[in-house]
Amino acid sequence: MTSVRLGIVGLGTVGCGTLSILRDNASLLAQRTGCDIRVSTAAVRDLSRPRTCDTQGIRLVNTPLSVATAADVDVVVELMGGTGLAVDVVRTAIEAGKHVITANKALLAEHGNELLALAEAKGVMVAFEASVAGGIPVIKALKEGMAGNAINWVAGIINGTCNYMLTEMAKPGNDFAPVLKEAQRLGYAEAEPSFDIDGIDASHKLAILASVAFGVPLSRQGMLIEGITMVTADDIAWADDLGYKIKSLGIARRREAGIELRVQSALVPKSKLLANVDDVMNAVMVNGNAVGTTLYSGAGAGGLPTGSAVVADIVDVCIAMRTGQVLRPALGIAMKDLSPLPILPSSEIQTAYYLRLSVTDAPGVLAKISAVLAHEGISIEEMRQQPDSARSAAALVLLTNVVKEAAFMNALTQLSALTDLKSPVAWLRVEHLA
Amino acid sequence: MTSVRLGIVGLGTVGCGTLSILRDNASLLAQRTGCDIRVSTAAVRDLSRPRTCDTQGIRLVNTPLSVATAADVDVVVELMGGTGLAVDVVRTAIEAGKHVITANKALLAEHGNELLALAEAKGVMVAFEASVAGGIPVIKALKEGMAGNAINWVAGIINGTCNYMLTEMAKPGNDFAPVLKEAQRLGYAEAEPSFDIDGIDASHKLAILASVAFGVPLSRQGMLIEGITMVTADDIAWADDLGYKIKSLGIARRREAGIELRVQSALVPKSKLLANVDDVMNAVMVNGNAVGTTLYSGAGAGGLPTGSAVVADIVDVCIAMRTGQVLRPALGIAMKDLSPLPILPSSEIQTAYYLRLSVTDAPGVLAKISAVLAHEGISIEEMRQQPDSARSAAALVLLTNVVKEAAFMNALTQLSALTDLKSPVAWLRVEHLA
Repeated sequence: MTSVRLGIVGLGTVGCGTLSILRDNASLLAQRTGCDIRVSTAAVRDLSRPRTCDTQGIRLVNTPLSVATAADVDVVVELMGGTGLAVDVVRTAIEAGKHVITANKALLAEHGNELLALAEAKGVMVAFEASVAGGIPVIKALKEGMAGNAINWVAGIINGTCNYMLTEMAKPGNDFAPVLKEAQRLGYAEAEPSFDIDGIDASHKLAILASVAFGVPLSRQGMLIEGITMVTADDIAWADDLGYKIKSLGIARRREAGIELRVQSALVPKSKLLANVDDVMNAVMVNGNAVGTTLYSGAGAGGLPTGSAVVADIVDVCIAMRTGQVLRPALGIAMKDLSPLPILPSSEIQTAYYLRLSVTDAPGVLAKISAVLAHEGISIEEMRQQPDSARSAAALVLLTNVVKEAAFMNALTQLSALTDLKSPVAWLRVEHLA
Repeated sequence: MTSVRLGIVGLGTVGCGTLSILRDNASLLAQRTGCDIRVSTAAVRDLSRPRTCDTQGIRLVNTPLSVATAADVDVVVELMGGTGLAVDVVRTAIEAGKHVITANKALLAEHGNELLALAEAKGVMVAFEASVAGGIPVIKALKEGMAGNAINWVAGIINGTCNYMLTEMAKPGNDFAPVLKEAQRLGYAEAEPSFDIDGIDASHKLAILASVAFGVPLSRQGMLIEGITMVTADDIAWADDLGYKIKSLGIARRREAGIELRVQSALVPKSKLLANVDDVMNAVMVNGNAVGTTLYSGAGAGGLPTGSAVVADIVDVCIAMRTGQVLRPALGIAMKDLSPLPILPSSEIQTAYYLRLSVTDAPGVLAKISAVLAHEGISIEEMRQQPDSARSAAALVLLTNVVKEAAFMNALTQLSALTDLKSPVAWLRVEHLA
């Protein structure tokens, strides 16, 4: 029986979740891997703090780097997060010839190319199922389950905080500020929530998904990153009326000229499964040229769900260790085979749009708006008008056809200059996910 | 570069889909596997028939068994279906030391234990991602993505014909017979539709899912197999009114005393993603003790989607061949480790129920019905009553709590004996998927 000795760096929620899965399902794991899996050491921040999980038989240290070089560690499981010390731990582990499993999306998005190239040179594995969409095995689905496909696009709800907030804001009387406060109270949002609600977290995950899907280097360069702060309860209600839900999506789509890469809040038709993924749940849709569209959903965070992904990686690494070979490149293809497809500038993005205008309730206003859109080659797919009594105005809501963002932005500039506006133009993208 | 030579048995829809993927995505596949994949031979039924796919460079034969022993074949891809000659082909291939990839659920459900044990003894692989839910990589998700979990239950829409028909029957004015005719016209149902609508096809797939999920031998013995023929448009409308959709599900659930294994039409809360998987789409929900509930959806049939799953298996087999080792047992654990957990008799099933009764509109009838249910320990969770003018009666619809099927069947017998009934009692199970 191949012996596999793990060194876990970080015993927070995910670290403890991983430990408890390794213990509770130990006999299953032995059957499934043919390996004897043991945690020999774990690094924690403060040795004196009472542990929230059972660490019996595990050597605890407060020196993360020492785990990366420990003689009794074959696989370093990096669960400390961040792009500081974690990068040193992972680099040192790879240099020491150890395999690495990580849940750290920021590390991969920002230092992944260097670290994965180093791992390839050293002949060790880097596995990162837990870095995107928590417990959903979406990296495996992309890399292996859809290995026969050229991927056309990926679109996912990959930040649970945003999804929770948008779900709550759809309930009567809930607007952004109170919902954020509630999310913070529940522990779904940080005291400093920007990392989630401004789309940073999702952008890290999207960089990883795009790399695995398209074989491009890990990078957020050129990515359009928008959060959910521009979404109002009004827009959610209008979207609902039009048959849509507003979701915060990470989208990577291959076009002839390059790749669209964007994190944004968009209207999604309610008829799509993705629109019905609510609360803190995550889901990723993947469209391949053979299989068509598939969807993977589940818990995107939490100790046990994320631990489930970490343990799936541990199983894969064990099986590969049994053969003494690296079975698949970390991104599905070798680093030298990555192709730096251009990331399209935002002006080249092709999508449909939602527009909400509060205008003077006077004849001729709609004619002016239509003229602006027509001039930019934008057609109106659907329109709703309703008195906006609060502003003694008319609320006008439009859905456009799919156009290039440059054309839309031109139209937006002109619309924003109209003298008939009672408030700034609100707009969002509309994703048909087809 | 490891050379991998495929012999494909059967060039129907899936065989041609597989061939076209291997051609169209050839360079991607070489990058992803590090193998040189070639189709050296293919068996077809009739050599003189014009081919619907490009077979240039492939030796065509009409002797399936010869592919299983051909010197220039490393991997036999069995896509002919059925449990006749296909079994001989697969057995012969394994005996000849060749790996096997198959999309044949009937073969696995009925001969899988013997064939997989033989493969294990011979040190060859048998891969079968395409046998369940077409292009959705659900076997991989269960076996590998959720390898860290003990599986609690699996519930899936795994027959596209049934799902199409139930989706259509939800549209006004559509009842069973005309919808079946339309499904046959569209090629979604066979002229002899029993295999799909009576649940046989789903039962084969469920046997496979249960084996991979729970590590039990492949078997349909003791499985409760019901189709969709008892579902009426009336029931679909009532279910809708109560917040449910009716879906044909394959369910495998671990209980203390054994495993529930059943194919049946059941009410599913609309709030569940699974309820929103419509038309010919498939989806499988899996609940694991670490990750919680995940869902995998996509196309369950068709040449390219199913071919996508076949090619994913080809990739896995290539990578394993590179190492010269079988990486994982076919069912996730070795055949000797399978545990023959008992399949619970239907009387032991625990679920909720939907009841529809057409009763005399007279005082005291509801009291009698409630008394019968109460006597069996069944409580009413929800009730609707409505005049049934066609029968000058009252339509009464009930949802019960979760009870053992034995109790429900006792109640049903007593309810069916009531003199106040205007028509036989209609009933279905209700699955909360929790």
